[in-house]
Amino acid sequence: MSQQRRITFQPHGRSVFVLDGTKLLEAAARTGLTIETPCGGLTTCGKCRVQVTTGACAPDQHEQELFSREELAAGWRLACQTTVRGDTVVHIPDSSLFAGRHQIFVEARTGAAEEVLPAVRKQYVELPAATLDDTTPDLMRLEKVTGPLKTDLGMLQRLGSVLRRCEGKGTAVLSDHHLLDFEPGDTTGQCYGMAFDIGTTTVVGSLVDLADGRELAIASAMNPQISFGDDVLSRIERSGSSQASADEMQTTIVGAVGGLIEQLCDDAGVDRRRVYELAFAGNTTMEHLLCGLDVTQLGQVPFVPVHGRGLMLRAEQLTLDVHRNAALYVFPVIGGFVGGDTVAGILTAKLTEAAAPVLMIDIGTNGEIVLCHDGRLSAASTAAGPAFEGARISCGMRATTGAIEKVVLDDDVNVNVIANAEPIGLCGSGLIDLAADMLDAGLITREGRLLGPDELPGELPAAITGRVTVNGEGQTEFLIAGDAGGRGVRLNQRDVRELQLATGAIHAGVNILLKQAHLATGDLEQVLIAGGFGSFIRRSKAQRIGLLPSDVDHRKIRYIGNASLNGAKWALLSTPARKRAEEIARMAQHVELSRDTNFQMEFAEAMIFPE
Amino acid sequence: MSQQRRITFQPHGRSVFVLDGTKLLEAAARTGLTIETPCGGLTTCGKCRVQVTTGACAPDQHEQELFSREELAAGWRLACQTTVRGDTVVHIPDSSLFAGRHQIFVEARTGAAEEVLPAVRKQYVELPAATLDDTTPDLMRLEKVTGPLKTDLGMLQRLGSVLRRCEGKGTAVLSDHHLLDFEPGDTTGQCYGMAFDIGTTTVVGSLVDLADGRELAIASAMNPQISFGDDVLSRIERSGSSQASADEMQTTIVGAVGGLIEQLCDDAGVDRRRVYELAFAGNTTMEHLLCGLDVTQLGQVPFVPVHGRGLMLRAEQLTLDVHRNAALYVFPVIGGFVGGDTVAGILTAKLTEAAAPVLMIDIGTNGEIVLCHDGRLSAASTAAGPAFEGARISCGMRATTGAIEKVVLDDDVNVNVIANAEPIGLCGSGLIDLAADMLDAGLITREGRLLGPDELPGELPAAITGRVTVNGEGQTEFLIAGDAGGRGVRLNQRDVRELQLATGAIHAGVNILLKQAHLATGDLEQVLIAGGFGSFIRRSKAQRIGLLPSDVDHRKIRYIGNASLNGAKWALLSTPARKRAEEIARMAQHVELSRDTNFQMEFAEAMIFPE
Repeated sequence: MSQQRRITFQPHGRSVFVLDGTKLLEAAARTGLTIETPCGGLTTCGKCRVQVTTGACAPDQHEQELFSREELAAGWRLACQTTVRGDTVVHIPDSSLFAGRHQIFVEARTGAAEEVLPAVRKQYVELPAATLDDTTPDLMRLEKVTGPLKTDLGMLQRLGSVLRRCEGKGTAVLSDHHLLDFEPGDTTGQCYGMAFDIGTTTVVGSLVDLADGRELAIASAMNPQISFGDDVLSRIERSGSSQASADEMQTTIVGAVGGLIEQLCDDAGVDRRRVYELAFAGNTTMEHLLCGLDVTQLGQVPFVPVHGRGLMLRAEQLTLDVHRNAALYVFPVIGGFVGGDTVAGILTAKLTEAAAPVLMIDIGTNGEIVLCHDGRLSAASTAAGPAFEGARISCGMRATTGAIEKVVLDDDVNVNVIANAEPIGLCGSGLIDLAADMLDAGLITREGRLLGPDELPGELPAAITGRVTVNGEGQTEFLIAGDAGGRGVRLNQRDVRELQLATGAIHAGVNILLKQAHLATGDLEQVLIAGGFGSFIRRSKAQRIGLLPSDVDHRKIRYIGNASLNGAKWALLSTPARKRAEEIARMAQHVELSRDTNFQMEFAEAMIFPE
Repeated sequence: MSQQRRITFQPHGRSVFVLDGTKLLEAAARTGLTIETPCGGLTTCGKCRVQVTTGACAPDQHEQELFSREELAAGWRLACQTTVRGDTVVHIPDSSLFAGRHQIFVEARTGAAEEVLPAVRKQYVELPAATLDDTTPDLMRLEKVTGPLKTDLGMLQRLGSVLRRCEGKGTAVLSDHHLLDFEPGDTTGQCYGMAFDIGTTTVVGSLVDLADGRELAIASAMNPQISFGDDVLSRIERSGSSQASADEMQTTIVGAVGGLIEQLCDDAGVDRRRVYELAFAGNTTMEHLLCGLDVTQLGQVPFVPVHGRGLMLRAEQLTLDVHRNAALYVFPVIGGFVGGDTVAGILTAKLTEAAAPVLMIDIGTNGEIVLCHDGRLSAASTAAGPAFEGARISCGMRATTGAIEKVVLDDDVNVNVIANAEPIGLCGSGLIDLAADMLDAGLITREGRLLGPDELPGELPAAITGRVTVNGEGQTEFLIAGDAGGRGVRLNQRDVRELQLATGAIHAGVNILLKQAHLATGDLEQVLIAGGFGSFIRRSKAQRIGLLPSDVDHRKIRYIGNASLNGAKWALLSTPARKRAEEIARMAQHVELSRDTNFQMEFAEAMIFPE
């Protein structure tokens, strides 16, 4: 066999052994360095300039025309022309490397910056035609420019005819070293991805440009699985009842994602076949249902997930209508009830980089609580229930048109209604406001009892006391808005109990995590509120009812928005971020709250509103 | 984060950094060393004994019961129990490693030996049940025993329920680090693979036991694509005529492979769901058609294949009915007309290890010729046509019942008929015998003219001369067997021309390869005859008609049987052999005979029979 030569590339310090006669371009590709060659090595573009500092051969005619005498003497050559004839050291200037994407995107709410380094990238090439002297197979001909590629059968089945149709001038779509597609012509300007937050109640999707990280569209929809039950346990039960139910559960959520894909592409005017990667973050059950994994064991002690690490799937496996080879990244999970949404939140909040103790709370149908201190992560989930999303509250509704989203009690009840419409119900933030002010006014006791018309404190304005009535079932009610006689928006005793359960679950979880870490709420440097809902609540009111720790300075409480969606976006836009997500899931300690001996006691205490 | 410790395993010299508290078992798995733990780390089997030579912790109760005081002092521990508490050096005795397969198989014809090291292996495990203290996800629980695994969505979708059904006691089926399946109970005794030679005319399959390399069954069938044309060019043309034709071509060959799979499993009494890997070697066109790759470019100058390297597919992609996750290895190719069958032949003949020049000839519908000398491989193909397989010869037939497979001319014509049946046709070996003896007897001139009844040499026996007649079309004919008046087996002038074309093509190819390497036939140390057909021809007769080099001592000519099938079997049984196959394809130089300026001249000369 011919002799092997050592080629070293600087300033990267990468080496490779190749046979005599190998082109520098190919040698560089083998070390993972992709040199610019839009002309496909035909010498016409002159973009692949490199400086051979040791072992330079005599320049060929093209090189003599292109470079000055001084440049040639200094070893400047074209990587597409110069072949290896001995051990060689080559300096590759940045300008000759395939356009490094040093773009930065900044997450709007947290202000954290991240480099745009997506797994998917596009490379326009112009491959020289095959001749009888060079019958290199199609795939290997492409690899001479792109470096080694993995590919699947479908891609190989198309490759030959596509290459011939466009005469080798086209765009390789690469995900890491996987060849997703080869598109005729230069399509480098169209490279998109989507991130999804799959919530138990709501699904949110975001369409981003993978070249610069810009968000082009955002859309949300109800999770249609809600018709099978409003919490994860009822979904698990339903899914476990038969294979048909399990399939239906998957089809339902996949359909919702499909609807969002259509809407996002329509809104941004993007061709869905140019969407090459999707990232999904959701709680463990939602991720399992999306992927069609068996969830029965998530409904039984000890709640074991099937997968822990993130999953890489293909769009066709979920029959999602984007590019047919699009890759799907499903977030890693921490435990049966601490899922990829929490991992995504930890990622986007950069929790692991915090110096002092930080608490993150995601207030959703499941409340996830993460404590980071001393480089350690502990995470727990509580079944808060869907009260904050309007379910199980008599006049509850989601935060849409007609929802009372803010309440202030003074001489009377003042409300703010979304879209300035007629009030038709109460959403989570309004519920918290109302409960907080009613506590302050003495309309609700610390134990959560709604005082009856006869028990009210004397100093209350008449406009307020007049709103307290007893309904036909003997339950005390409070009229928030609307007609006292007929269709008013009301809060009743059962609603307060639901609120206590939701609040108490989170409150108890926080207390247990802190106790296990030998910390008190006063030690917390920051409390981060994640989740789409979180952004709308008023911190002081949430503290008043015990949903957030009451003895933390409210300036230390920050909203970080839909951290799950943002984390999914990060993972889409940055492979280093994706690696961090995997590390987070691996290092996080899953705390099973019910295993804590203090849990029942803590929960009972947490149900009582703070003084 | 917790501290990382360096763990070194001896005598393998592998190191890994792990967190404090990691079990030695897991640390070893991360370096790729799999320690025996049939009990799944429950301490009950005691098979995972290792000697901690540096950094041993105090033994636990199980270890104190299992080991003597001296053993404990010497650092003997259970890898499933001992956790890392500092930098550690561990000696793993061979007996504790997962059963290394040091089985050897010997290829019957060539006598070459190869270690049985298949990609697929089975490992029986007994996983401990999950508890609230250990809610490790299913896949990661399995990985604690097997080491890191890759898996696909279908496998993950089944994993949870399978693990629970068999209570963690089952057999992991692994292909490299890919989890193909998890089967309840211990199925390690059933681990099978299949190798296929996909010829233009014949398809042969072999069923082997992946544990010891034994061949359990072998079966062959006509390639049913033959109904679309008997050579590769007509198949290419047909396949290129429409997508439906291309699909039909693939379906046809896949169907033939499916039929052989059924037959092989029936013959050996093997459950087809226990067949986990298939290896395919065929010429470039056959491999492309099998995989559904576009072949149109194989029919046009410069005959560029789509793939060069070997392909890894999944059985379901070709809808083959074996284990649903079975891996398919399709051999790498050297060029458009020098395919995976030739690579497999070079592999099994160990050509690259030869010191002196060796020639390998595969006499099939395409004749492939490989010359190895001085560590270099050059390979060419010639369109020999299907004459040796009985096609295009008026009374030609395959070597089956009723075929005249041997002919001796003395006072008369003596024939040997397969299965001692009534002669109904002439197969390749009979054709060569007959032509050689007719040349010697002066019935055929060196230029290939069949002499008429009036031109015959005087000294021939009457029984012979009486067989020469002129048919209705004015063509001279020779009656080999049967009734002179009616249905006899005959050789006519056109048949001799077909033979000359086939022989001349191979003869010319050999001459050009030798000339390009500055060698003469006399320099050849060995001539290897590959191909199922090759085994049946008589060397001296083949030399007589110029099919084999006439000035090579016939003792230097060796048959190596169906080297393509054997190579495929090797690749199935040994991953090192598979790597060598990839190297062979990469290093082999593809010689396009028609590009040689001497080709036309050589071909014309080679058509003339030797003196």
